[in-house]
Amino acid sequence: MELQVLVLRPIFFFFFFVFLTILQQSSSARVLTITKPDRHDYAASARWLVSQNSWGVLSTLSVDHKGAPFGNVVSFSDGLPEKGNGIPYFYLTTLDPTARNALKDQRASLAISESPLGTCTRDPMNPTCSKLTLTGKLLILEGGSEEAEVAKKALFTKHPEMMDWPKDHDFRFFKLEIIDIFLINWYGGAKPITVDEYLHAKS
Amino acid sequence: MELQVLVLRPIFFFFFFVFLTILQQSSSARVLTITKPDRHDYAASARWLVSQNSWGVLSTLSVDHKGAPFGNVVSFSDGLPEKGNGIPYFYLTTLDPTARNALKDQRASLAISESPLGTCTRDPMNPTCSKLTLTGKLLILEGGSEEAEVAKKALFTKHPEMMDWPKDHDFRFFKLEIIDIFLINWYGGAKPITVDEYLHAKS
Repeated sequence: MELQVLVLRPIFFFFFFVFLTILQQSSSARVLTITKPDRHDYAASARWLVSQNSWGVLSTLSVDHKGAPFGNVVSFSDGLPEKGNGIPYFYLTTLDPTARNALKDQRASLAISESPLGTCTRDPMNPTCSKLTLTGKLLILEGGSEEAEVAKKALFTKHPEMMDWPKDHDFRFFKLEIIDIFLINWYGGAKPITVDEYLHAKS
Repeated sequence: MELQVLVLRPIFFFFFFVFLTILQQSSSARVLTITKPDRHDYAASARWLVSQNSWGVLSTLSVDHKGAPFGNVVSFSDGLPEKGNGIPYFYLTTLDPTARNALKDQRASLAISESPLGTCTRDPMNPTCSKLTLTGKLLILEGGSEEAEVAKKALFTKHPEMMDWPKDHDFRFFKLEIIDIFLINWYGGAKPITVDEYLHAKS
């Protein structure tokens, strides 16, 4: 019995370290596969946030609350990660206030955080944890149009569940036409970045 | 050698399953410790979302963009998880548009998602993945007042990093005075819930 313990102990430690290694690698795998762009490249940083994230908060002017700002958690997509065009597309129903608000007043903004990506270790409000607000117009895309097809592909590949959402709920494709970009990806306040720089950068 | 393999094989499988169990428990530990309230209890569901989450998007009316809605990623706290009072407190600087906007027009909303908690497995926009928008007034708290002390404790215990944020950046405590609650925590549209029910529920 005593001998058995002595023989088994090194075997135990061997398997212990093998599994500790597997455990460590599996838990850090996500962080390692998402490469954050150089923080000095503002356009790439913004495109990366849009490309990698799958949800954000879309704010409109509330019809029900006399023009008060109404933020709503929504899924979005600009295409598959690293293959998007930078334009956020949405699949919204007029059963929900956001789409109804936008049909009355197009002014909107989309806010997204680096926090869900797991690549920042500080507080979500710390400037090193990137955040982005795209301000613009929330536009409905004409059914069957070329851009509606682009939106559909971008959304349904990133959010396959959407394909099964109820057909009788009047879901329609929308896009945010970007007018202004507010990016914080380091200390020192919002970074200067034009819509043109953003749209022509690589995600 | 042949015998050694035969003897070691059961030992290998024993350790393999022991570590698989540890691996499984460690990866699901977060989900197991966060108990989601009964979905029929709307007030408890809303309080739970506010209590467990540490960040959301705070929307105001943009001074820079002539009243357009401006969502901004912010950290917040209503107190320690399961010990909060339901009122979201913020630590904002007037170097940032959100605080400046609120000082001009108090109308605001805070949108938060269940997604960061890791307790929903569906798409963040699926109705079973809860989301909440609190609409109200974003009010600055008078420095040194009793409520500013409540806000300070709520924020600094949940976001200890805030204690070290630059003293010369004019950070001030704010609260959202809630006027309306928009909660989706299951199919069937927004759930009826009054501010009174929300404030008197257990988080």
